[in-house]
Amino acid sequence: MDYLQPLSPLWGTRLHMALELAATLAFALSGVIEAARKRLDVVGVAVVAFAAAFGGGTLRDLLLDYRPFFWVAHIEFLWSVVALCAAAMLFMRQQHLHPTERAILWPDAIGLGLFTAIGVDRALAMGQPALVAVMMGVITSVFGGVLRDVLCNEVPRALSDHRPYALWAFAGGWLHCVLLTLAGLPPWLALTLTVVATAGLRLVSVYRDWQLPSWHD
Amino acid sequence: MDYLQPLSPLWGTRLHMALELAATLAFALSGVIEAARKRLDVVGVAVVAFAAAFGGGTLRDLLLDYRPFFWVAHIEFLWSVVALCAAAMLFMRQQHLHPTERAILWPDAIGLGLFTAIGVDRALAMGQPALVAVMMGVITSVFGGVLRDVLCNEVPRALSDHRPYALWAFAGGWLHCVLLTLAGLPPWLALTLTVVATAGLRLVSVYRDWQLPSWHD
Amino acid sequence: MDYLQPLSPLWGTRLHMALELAATLAFALSGVIEAARKRLDVVGVAVVAFAAAFGGGTLRDLLLDYRPFFWVAHIEFLWSVVALCAAAMLFMRQQHLHPTERAILWPDAIGLGLFTAIGVDRALAMGQPALVAVMMGVITSVFGGVLRDVLCNEVPRALSDHRPYALWAFAGGWLHCVLLTLAGLPPWLALTLTVVATAGLRLVSVYRDWQLPSWHD
Repeated sequence: MDYLQPLSPLWGTRLHMALELAATLAFALSGVIEAARKRLDVVGVAVVAFAAAFGGGTLRDLLLDYRPFFWVAHIEFLWSVVALCAAAMLFMRQQHLHPTERAILWPDAIGLGLFTAIGVDRALAMGQPALVAVMMGVITSVFGGVLRDVLCNEVPRALSDHRPYALWAFAGGWLHCVLLTLAGLPPWLALTLTVVATAGLRLVSVYRDWQLPSWHD
Repeated sequence: MDYLQPLSPLWGTRLHMALELAATLAFALSGVIEAARKRLDVVGVAVVAFAAAFGGGTLRDLLLDYRPFFWVAHIEFLWSVVALCAAAMLFMRQQHLHPTERAILWPDAIGLGLFTAIGVDRALAMGQPALVAVMMGVITSVFGGVLRDVLCNEVPRALSDHRPYALWAFAGGWLHCVLLTLAGLPPWLALTLTVVATAGLRLVSVYRDWQLPSWHD
Repeated sequence: MDYLQPLSPLWGTRLHMALELAATLAFALSGVIEAARKRLDVVGVAVVAFAAAFGGGTLRDLLLDYRPFFWVAHIEFLWSVVALCAAAMLFMRQQHLHPTERAILWPDAIGLGLFTAIGVDRALAMGQPALVAVMMGVITSVFGGVLRDVLCNEVPRALSDHRPYALWAFAGGWLHCVLLTLAGLPPWLALTLTVVATAGLRLVSVYRDWQLPSWHD
């Protein structure tokens, strides 16, 4: 997000990039874990990791007709996921990956907030209405996980888990819209508040085990 | 379809819009019903409803490189599906949804014909060959349901149901091509005839329980 | 690939086209076989055949924002798959399709190499970095099969089969990049070498039953 450079002495482009990279790797790692659990081969692990990490942003950019994709503009993200897959393959015979599921909870929650805010930003910057921008935020943060689960032949967890996930992206997207347009906050401040609120709600709802209402058929 | 405005004293833009909205809501409702049956949570129900309602038109516009998407140009459609999901959630603990499956048969059949004709129209207007236009018609009317079933981890019903559905979209697409280009009918008349023929064939094949031949392996 | 015409006295546009058609039909036939095995109806068989044959190239062109799609520019490919589906339906009650699985091994392997090389070519011609070009090659040759398996509600075979397939596309893509850019070979020669190497590796790994390492959870 180039517009952040002059505006964010506090948040800072480097911190922003580091967080985005951490979130991307967390999403990729969730793909590695799920693919390994389904006993896919090394190619399957890599494909599912890429789909989880880049699926959401790619679908958003496809729908918004925005090029180049962020993984073309920042090809170091692509190489990072390649490196992650290579590292995962080295560990693959030696180590159980269950403990890492806890470990990705925090970067995953930060990624949820960050990707939502980035998606909303991009859609608003391209002149989309607020509802469309919020949907783009949700798609950015959620579609990677949906694609990961579809490739692994599972009902997507984001749709069936009963723990709120996409819901916080939806709420965070509206918050970001309001902060940016109605409240007129500077972008870096709106981004920070959105990420803190969305990631915070996600973490609280996991630790307190909040449940979405289910449908009694 | 703006070109209809001066041409259709009979069919009329308002009737056309009302039918398109009814069809979109019927597709969304089919998503709600299937998601509820698979015990997805409220977020899953909403996502599957959106995918069913807007998946076909979105893929068509992506493939044709046509922007803005119809749900950006007519954002009231998006809000209508949001309202439908909200309403469905209110009913969700109180009522069984089985009777509604019959209720969506008619709008679903009209949507099949209408979305096919709209897809063919758009592709022909963009100078695509007839076979491509017919495929766009089929994609518009069928892909939403396919996406709905893939998200719910089912073999798509349109592909395995053995009751003709996509086949009528295919036939209706060719009919629409012939009426528009060879017969040179005015758009509103071609649209009306295509919708009546496609929806009629679909309804007859449901009520008479026509079966597609199956493959003996 | 128009640029091949003046450059390839040896390989030749006609041979190239014939091979590409054979590969497309082999991919379509793999869709027919899988759809028949899952007892889809005739519409499902046709849809899965189209998805298998054109899914990879379509996703590549969508991601690269390249229009018209190759199946719009070469609509005879689309008609060929229509004809293949029609022919398959005639045989559908009379004949078992198991022997054909062996029969598509060769065109499928050639398609793997050819589609990889074509994908890399197109991405490089549009100025993409090498890693992105290789990914486009892999997507071109692999995504059709992934889509086929997702539609049939299976874990994609390319991800779980443990026999190297996408891996050879990945390796062949890098080979093609190196031959074209570093070695500076003429396109037709690079294409020939890539196809021979990729298809050869695929065939050897099937006949010798090479296995990818699996993940011990």
